[in-house]
Amino acid sequence: MIDLYAFATPNSVKVPVMLEEVGAAYRLIKVNIRAGEQKTPEFLALNPNGKVPVIVDPQGPHGAPVTITESAAILIYLGEKFGRLIPADPVGRIRMFEWMFFHASGLGPAFGQSGYFQKLAPTPAPLAIERFSTEARRTLAVLDRRLRDAEYLAGEYSVADIVNFGWIWRREFAGVDFSETPNVARWYASLEQRPAVSRAIAKLSA
Amino acid sequence: MIDLYAFATPNSVKVPVMLEEVGAAYRLIKVNIRAGEQKTPEFLALNPNGKVPVIVDPQGPHGAPVTITESAAILIYLGEKFGRLIPADPVGRIRMFEWMFFHASGLGPAFGQSGYFQKLAPTPAPLAIERFSTEARRTLAVLDRRLRDAEYLAGEYSVADIVNFGWIWRREFAGVDFSETPNVARWYASLEQRPAVSRAIAKLSA
Repeated sequence: MIDLYAFATPNSVKVPVMLEEVGAAYRLIKVNIRAGEQKTPEFLALNPNGKVPVIVDPQGPHGAPVTITESAAILIYLGEKFGRLIPADPVGRIRMFEWMFFHASGLGPAFGQSGYFQKLAPTPAPLAIERFSTEARRTLAVLDRRLRDAEYLAGEYSVADIVNFGWIWRREFAGVDFSETPNVARWYASLEQRPAVSRAIAKLSA
Repeated sequence: MIDLYAFATPNSVKVPVMLEEVGAAYRLIKVNIRAGEQKTPEFLALNPNGKVPVIVDPQGPHGAPVTITESAAILIYLGEKFGRLIPADPVGRIRMFEWMFFHASGLGPAFGQSGYFQKLAPTPAPLAIERFSTEARRTLAVLDRRLRDAEYLAGEYSVADIVNFGWIWRREFAGVDFSETPNVARWYASLEQRPAVSRAIAKLSA
């Protein structure tokens, strides 16, 4: 039984989606980040970076327990452990890592900061709002171009799609929509229809 | 002969370091991002995301040419191709991916935005300066804590160290130093002394 520490956030949601996809047994432990529970000594002992999600797998490498942070690293671990959603084709594998790092370094931070400066910042910062909302729309357009040429980011459905799903699911926070990205809209709808995705969202939002 | 499109940036430098480490033959093609060369139609055909670095390996999977973007994805490709700097131990492998994504999603964006708002922004944005310089120092402290407990990020020297090296090399831009992070200082010095790192920086800065 894998322990999953998570909250209903763009980064958290990827992990229950993956656990549902591979059919792993897991226990969801909610970490209320609005109440600051990710900064308690108990949680910082699990992840010194103070962020959800985290998993603890009692049956890690060599049969010993292992604690893993960073949603995308968790997905690679689970994909390799269960032999699922990692493309066997070497070109698909290259694309998988490309689009995972595109999300981690580009789209994810842009969406997060766009939302922060539009909705949470204590004082207005027009320069930052302009910078990050422009970058959020730009990165979404880059994703759209890829999904014009490919059904899924790595060709076939993979962990790269699940990684990018997180922030697209929470796109309203970032102030973006699908009006100019029809290929992202089509891809998102196909993910949303997956039973594993519905189950994960229902459990996380409960 | 691998073609490397790069400039003297925190993300570019990782790739010549890796190419030097594995002893691959490569040709460096400078893309002057100050002159906007990463936004030309020719470059966007290589990377629609308009960012360096990019590699083109004429001997990719199935013996066909392959174009790869995203510095961390390039490092994983080269590590797997040459069988180097990817830990064989499964726990080391988990830590490698964790610290690669920590850099991509956390330290890298924080350092980049901290530098942008302190040094390049057209008008002052105190809230953004405070937000990102605080986050740059916080993520550096998280890295320091890991390097207190481990000589290298994945235990042994790996692509995770090369990935994190990029922004630490350019820390002055982000407005941070090593005064409160002695373990990062020790780790950085050991990387800087590697002949592959010296050669890569010399070629990129030439």
